[in-house]
Amino acid sequence: MERPLFFITNDDGVDAKGLRSLIEVIRPLGRILVVAPEISQSGKSHAVTFSDPLYLRRVSAEPDVEIYACSGTPVDCVKLAFDRLMEEMPVLALSGINHGSNSAVSVIYSGTMGAAMECCMYSVPSIGFSLLDYDDDADFTASKHFVSLIVDKVMNGSAKTPLCLNVNIPALPKEEIRGVKVCRQNKGYWHEEFERRTDPRGRDYYWLKGFFLNEEEHAVDTDEYALGQGFVSVVPVQVDMTDYKRLALMRDWKF
Amino acid sequence: MERPLFFITNDDGVDAKGLRSLIEVIRPLGRILVVAPEISQSGKSHAVTFSDPLYLRRVSAEPDVEIYACSGTPVDCVKLAFDRLMEEMPVLALSGINHGSNSAVSVIYSGTMGAAMECCMYSVPSIGFSLLDYDDDADFTASKHFVSLIVDKVMNGSAKTPLCLNVNIPALPKEEIRGVKVCRQNKGYWHEEFERRTDPRGRDYYWLKGFFLNEEEHAVDTDEYALGQGFVSVVPVQVDMTDYKRLALMRDWKF
Repeated sequence: MERPLFFITNDDGVDAKGLRSLIEVIRPLGRILVVAPEISQSGKSHAVTFSDPLYLRRVSAEPDVEIYACSGTPVDCVKLAFDRLMEEMPVLALSGINHGSNSAVSVIYSGTMGAAMECCMYSVPSIGFSLLDYDDDADFTASKHFVSLIVDKVMNGSAKTPLCLNVNIPALPKEEIRGVKVCRQNKGYWHEEFERRTDPRGRDYYWLKGFFLNEEEHAVDTDEYALGQGFVSVVPVQVDMTDYKRLALMRDWKF
Repeated sequence: MERPLFFITNDDGVDAKGLRSLIEVIRPLGRILVVAPEISQSGKSHAVTFSDPLYLRRVSAEPDVEIYACSGTPVDCVKLAFDRLMEEMPVLALSGINHGSNSAVSVIYSGTMGAAMECCMYSVPSIGFSLLDYDDDADFTASKHFVSLIVDKVMNGSAKTPLCLNVNIPALPKEEIRGVKVCRQNKGYWHEEFERRTDPRGRDYYWLKGFFLNEEEHAVDTDEYALGQGFVSVVPVQVDMTDYKRLALMRDWKF
């Protein structure tokens, strides 16, 4: 019997250390297909490429681990993989491990989570993993332990789809991480303060620089809280954006 | 007393007919600041630009209508406008009118709605408008009528924030549109069938080509249904992606 197929992607690009770490954890469990962006696609959210063609490059094909790089966004990688490269559905789709946090509202800007949510629309259970360390050479030792734990939980639990998890891991040594908490997305937003500079031609340009404003600092059931307490946070996510509370209030709108 | 300030953006770019149509409707109501992408950013979702600097170009400044083009995504336009160009908060933020539908799950890929949701995080009531016609020269006559109606409703109703509306308008003459329906996001997903071609250098490339698969064709309270019946659809949206049903089922997860 053939070993099960896993699909892996990310948004930091095909050469990222976080991607290699994820492959290392999954390799003993089955065959792997990787389609990841050629270059960093951080912050690309659910972006798809309509107006340019997409290129695929075969990076390597060892027995049981096939790796492709794609010229597009993380969601393009997923769509191309599912339409063009897979002969069977994977048992699980994984995205990451991202270099940097995707907790709270960052989930909507995240290419890592854009890709994970896209996989989930193909009725494949999917998990996005992020480590709270932006360094290219971040230490994924503890992350690999928790990836293994959570993958095992999903594979051996009820994987009734749609199932998509947003997992964030504190930048702490394994022995200092206090455990795993299932929680909800913290409310808040990114406040930007662009830095203005002038280029050699005299034109002004701007660099995005922001910080997260937590709108519910006292809540204890959110991902931000869990991470602040030294736990790995696990938030189940979905793609229905309807604001049902507001919808109920709008039932009497007449035009 | 100064007339109220409105903020306008889109994803089709600063020269799009849909943007001009939206400006025409809003002009009698107050002052307008427009920051729109230099070129089409269709399908760019909530993407933000970290790794490149952003440029702003002043396109025109008539009394009461100031227009800038930005080199980035729709969300970049919003962030730059709110951090760098506004001296007061707008009373309302508008995105569109998009050339093409953003109903159902398209809302998560849409640059139009990415921008609208971003505005809503600044506690400004916001509305994204889309016409179900992809043509560059689409007829926005009926759309302008319904934009006016819905803006009026929001301005004169309870605009308790966060308020963000996803409005889609059928590509029909005004007299054939049966009214406006408040509804929820239709479940379903885009199925892709990439078209493969070969470039002059012998390399394969792929064009994204997909179609929407409706997963609840018999539901009568969704945006897809309303549009199919000839109504304008209005879906209130929000940015909490938590899957609360799944969360309840995961409360007993032990690690």
